[in-house]
Amino acid sequence: MELKTLSEIDIISASTSKINQVDFENLTFGNVFTDHMLVCDFENGAWQKPVIKPYEPFMIDPSAKVFHYGQAIFEGMKAYKDTHDDVWLFRPDENFHRFNKSASRMAMPEVPEDVFMGGLHKLLEIEKNWVKKGKGNTLYIRPFMIATGHGVIAAPSSEYRFMIILSPARAYYSGEVKVIIAEHFSRAANGGIGAAKAAGNYSAQFYPTKLANEKGFQQIIWTDDATHTKLEEAGTMNVFFRINDTLFTAPTSERILDGVTRKSVIELAKRENINVEVRSVLVDELIAAAKDGSLKEIFGAGTAAVINPIVGFSYKDTYYELPKIENSMALEIKEKLTNIQYKLAEDTFGWTVKI
Amino acid sequence: MELKTLSEIDIISASTSKINQVDFENLTFGNVFTDHMLVCDFENGAWQKPVIKPYEPFMIDPSAKVFHYGQAIFEGMKAYKDTHDDVWLFRPDENFHRFNKSASRMAMPEVPEDVFMGGLHKLLEIEKNWVKKGKGNTLYIRPFMIATGHGVIAAPSSEYRFMIILSPARAYYSGEVKVIIAEHFSRAANGGIGAAKAAGNYSAQFYPTKLANEKGFQQIIWTDDATHTKLEEAGTMNVFFRINDTLFTAPTSERILDGVTRKSVIELAKRENINVEVRSVLVDELIAAAKDGSLKEIFGAGTAAVINPIVGFSYKDTYYELPKIENSMALEIKEKLTNIQYKLAEDTFGWTVKI
Repeated sequence: MELKTLSEIDIISASTSKINQVDFENLTFGNVFTDHMLVCDFENGAWQKPVIKPYEPFMIDPSAKVFHYGQAIFEGMKAYKDTHDDVWLFRPDENFHRFNKSASRMAMPEVPEDVFMGGLHKLLEIEKNWVKKGKGNTLYIRPFMIATGHGVIAAPSSEYRFMIILSPARAYYSGEVKVIIAEHFSRAANGGIGAAKAAGNYSAQFYPTKLANEKGFQQIIWTDDATHTKLEEAGTMNVFFRINDTLFTAPTSERILDGVTRKSVIELAKRENINVEVRSVLVDELIAAAKDGSLKEIFGAGTAAVINPIVGFSYKDTYYELPKIENSMALEIKEKLTNIQYKLAEDTFGWTVKI
Repeated sequence: MELKTLSEIDIISASTSKINQVDFENLTFGNVFTDHMLVCDFENGAWQKPVIKPYEPFMIDPSAKVFHYGQAIFEGMKAYKDTHDDVWLFRPDENFHRFNKSASRMAMPEVPEDVFMGGLHKLLEIEKNWVKKGKGNTLYIRPFMIATGHGVIAAPSSEYRFMIILSPARAYYSGEVKVIIAEHFSRAANGGIGAAKAAGNYSAQFYPTKLANEKGFQQIIWTDDATHTKLEEAGTMNVFFRINDTLFTAPTSERILDGVTRKSVIELAKRENINVEVRSVLVDELIAAAKDGSLKEIFGAGTAAVINPIVGFSYKDTYYELPKIENSMALEIKEKLTNIQYKLAEDTFGWTVKI
């Protein structure tokens, strides 16, 4: 896919750059931002002229609908620098299309491609020094849209703001990741918004995740809310289970995010002749596989977390530790995926797009 | 319950009042605000000194967690003026306690009583001229809390802002209310946040409600997401069904908001010797009752909407019109409830609290 560029855009440059104040070796995920951001407002039924301007706080009314009704969506993407100092995106079209699917589900206007993609292209050209070379270094990209219209009546806003902010990033999770299988709490309803990258889906998980954290677990693997018997996703990652030499992952649905990393893992695994089955794994199956030793690996897949091996899980207060294995599929797939992203291996899929 | 007053509060008065520009006879719900608002920030693990200041936009960082993860809750309350020019609240303790229950479910800090209740008391003293006399006139009160902490990592914020804004209001719905019974979309998951007044619960309903609006229906009566067979609530109102001379309403649960108007209707109906059954009504029962004529009334109950009769409902593309009846329980209960709220009848329950 070709990135479109915007002909109509205002650019206001920052007078100074913060880049020299940043310790790129010791970044906490998502709390340092680059010098500029993209802003585009939807008013009077139309998207206005986008502007790239210094990253800074902005004014908003206390009655803005985003504060009261959570009408807000986002995407997570990354930019990578290759050894020639070129900057690349990974399957940005997937994020763009999913963003507009989320918009539609949340009764928000779709963002035009020239604003989303053209604006992102231009912003990354300006901020290319913030993308550092070397595997593991990325510039995390956060496009998002919020309802800025005024009024405390529960109805869609008529005004919106689309923004892109950029944050240099290394690992999302530091240290080992252990998970709890959800027995009571849930992430998404049938016929709900679980498949959308809607803001409200994330805060809904904070309290159960806090309870998990207090028990020493980093994340929860959510189960279907009706029966809590089917394994779904981890909220910030889709989840893969390796039983013997087959990889299993839940099919996407109204309750499960259609992850870009998830689908890339499936395609990569298939190319490597790894058997992949897209079907719901039952909690009972997982327990049985853990007990009889056929459960070899569990890993999460997401843009922020990339591929994240899970070292063990808890269910009904019993902890199941995963075996230490020599030939980890998680690590093999992660290596192949990141090699494509950093242009260290041939991109036979056509996934990478140059800025 | 006694309202506490705040000893420690800063007050910055507006230089002029907007009150004379407001047409109190022709108000659209929730889009005019009074001269002042209350603001209280949570920083460094503690609530700071609250301030009452002119209503105005405020500065916020693009990475504020409320925009990305929807960590936001609110309450809806009303102030009423009696014939002696005294201003009254209706069961404010219920809203205060529910607010903090919502806070807990959304991994947000609880707001102290002296900030919430004391702050509200003080704010209403200042804005008492905005509460107009006469039944139907109210000052709608919107306490809310948003996550203001920075950072695009999906974890609870460490900073929050609690605010109270006030909006003079008359009817929430103008005109007849017809509803669709949900067959596919859902409002809340088992083990989800449906019982919390969390921002994300509301925008999740916007798209299905827009589809309903396009077919000429104002609202949706949500059903349980697993089977879509049990009637739950309407998203902005709890729902009552009158079959013959019995009122039915769903029990509160993790999926259903514990409405203050709902519980007041139940108590009032019981005092009036109306038979009330708190149990789930099945969609099948409703259809059967509509067909055999035993379904007499459906009405919504909520702070914003008060008691809202529903004139008909649609299920599987069949429209069922409710009979025109002489002795409407909805209107009888509404009359008794609003008489208590406006101090036109004795408050035998102790529900009203004077400012």
